[in-house]
Amino acid sequence: MLRHCLAAAIAFAIALPVAAIAADQPAAHTPTPKELLAKSQPQEWRTPDPQNLLIMTLPKGQVLIELAPDFTPLHVANIRTLVREHYFDGLAIVRVQDNFVTQWGDPEDDDNGDKSKLKPLGSAKAKLPPEYTRPFDAKLPFTRLPDGDVYAPEVGFSQGFPVGRDKAHGQEWLTHCYGMVGVGRDADPETGSGTGLYVVIGQAPRGLDRNLAVVGRVLQGMEYLSGLPRGTGPLGFYDKPEQRVGISAIQLASELPPEQRPKIEVLRTDSATFTALIEAKRNRRDDFYRNPAGKIDLCSINIPVREAKAQP
Amino acid sequence: MLRHCLAAAIAFAIALPVAAIAADQPAAHTPTPKELLAKSQPQEWRTPDPQNLLIMTLPKGQVLIELAPDFTPLHVANIRTLVREHYFDGLAIVRVQDNFVTQWGDPEDDDNGDKSKLKPLGSAKAKLPPEYTRPFDAKLPFTRLPDGDVYAPEVGFSQGFPVGRDKAHGQEWLTHCYGMVGVGRDADPETGSGTGLYVVIGQAPRGLDRNLAVVGRVLQGMEYLSGLPRGTGPLGFYDKPEQRVGISAIQLASELPPEQRPKIEVLRTDSATFTALIEAKRNRRDDFYRNPAGKIDLCSINIPVREAKAQP
Repeated sequence: MLRHCLAAAIAFAIALPVAAIAADQPAAHTPTPKELLAKSQPQEWRTPDPQNLLIMTLPKGQVLIELAPDFTPLHVANIRTLVREHYFDGLAIVRVQDNFVTQWGDPEDDDNGDKSKLKPLGSAKAKLPPEYTRPFDAKLPFTRLPDGDVYAPEVGFSQGFPVGRDKAHGQEWLTHCYGMVGVGRDADPETGSGTGLYVVIGQAPRGLDRNLAVVGRVLQGMEYLSGLPRGTGPLGFYDKPEQRVGISAIQLASELPPEQRPKIEVLRTDSATFTALIEAKRNRRDDFYRNPAGKIDLCSINIPVREAKAQP
Repeated sequence: MLRHCLAAAIAFAIALPVAAIAADQPAAHTPTPKELLAKSQPQEWRTPDPQNLLIMTLPKGQVLIELAPDFTPLHVANIRTLVREHYFDGLAIVRVQDNFVTQWGDPEDDDNGDKSKLKPLGSAKAKLPPEYTRPFDAKLPFTRLPDGDVYAPEVGFSQGFPVGRDKAHGQEWLTHCYGMVGVGRDADPETGSGTGLYVVIGQAPRGLDRNLAVVGRVLQGMEYLSGLPRGTGPLGFYDKPEQRVGISAIQLASELPPEQRPKIEVLRTDSATFTALIEAKRNRRDDFYRNPAGKIDLCSINIPVREAKAQP
């Protein structure tokens, strides 16, 4: 039963029309994600720019992170420099705070660390100006969600990332949804550099939006960051060195020979199939879901990623 | 730096007034949670009813779950029966799906399980009517949040649980926030019994609201459910028996001698201090937070739990 049970809630069940409880819900069945993806067109998928694709190698597997240079260009450029110069190789995951973030960087870069042992930055910058929002640009693609948001006047997706917009104040920004990657900093807003990065592993901490530089999103391997024992020190830091998870390397796909780059494709967030997936999730009605929400929130939408088909 | 960094985002920093970007934000500093809790009154804390307190013993620690009989009375009663008759003792966590749920129950209760080996239910019922919503009751306490919600007409807290309300349709229900516990079922709405339970470990899957019976909330030990390796089978099921996490026992606190019951207190969600915590989180402004959200969503609010002071 268990596998049916809740499992059915996200399985691709045969959709049946059922009696509606809320009168404003459509009675027809909704297509499943599997059905919608099967009908997607090749041009609806994109290969991430290898200049924007980080490959993080952990003991149990690889994490792929897509960078968002249109939103945080200075931070992304600095992270590329750090990565090219192998800054992260040999560093570690140092913090896993439940329902908040997993964070990695230099273990010595910590209140209890020995600052004399800090890994040198190389040619990367030690401080950057804040890039917490960017000027609103009507030319950036935007797939707006119809159901509103508690925090931002408008929310939707741009170039594969969840975005909040405030046209009245001329700003837009990446939001702290599950799997989004940001840059740690001190209290001074100009102290972030990209040497310490975090990823959201719980309920979206949207209060961080517009207070930190968000640089990208995990495309694959999120389970290697989220499924770790929580740190038992203050704020979820691992209080014993042996609890840390070593990072063999973080590489840029563009630095690898083409045949060694990850072969993945991401569904375009300005595609018809993505819009159809959003609609199907808003009004999901099938054998299991008797009371479709009729709504969807920004951080509950998954962006499909698939293995690229072999080139002919 | 790391410990400051993002760590400061939730640390109890000295609050400083800073220039407001959004004109509607108050310029004064906000009190920290630590400051607010230090001023709380003893009568603002409650000891969970031992009839509603489950103690789940896992290899790495204990999980405390508070049941919500005012919302799902039949399911809660059945779970109490299962627990009193030691149904869960020796069963296991069978599924950890990233950004969704951790689920436990009888490993044989699975598409691949041997149904002849199913643990007998004892005097518990095998099926229950759906309790996905309950009739709206103005007498239940309700601390309403001021910033709206994507899914429900009204949201807030009642008796320590996050709640959605739809007065127009005369319904209220527990919402699927992080740490909420629900009852798995088959597609048929009358197939849930409480033998298979799940807890939310990611972004709140609010589309499940009003489709499943939510029976309670994890008060303590959430990290033992969320910080597990993700299952690699379909839907996050552990595909090898050795991956499962054994449950030594689930007990009801009321079945234990008083001196062996967990000594914890929960901040009342109808207390002045809880309201002050919500306000401080909505408009957090300190040395780190330069752009307070001015808003808060239901599932981003933590309900404080503390060790009870020793009785004199």
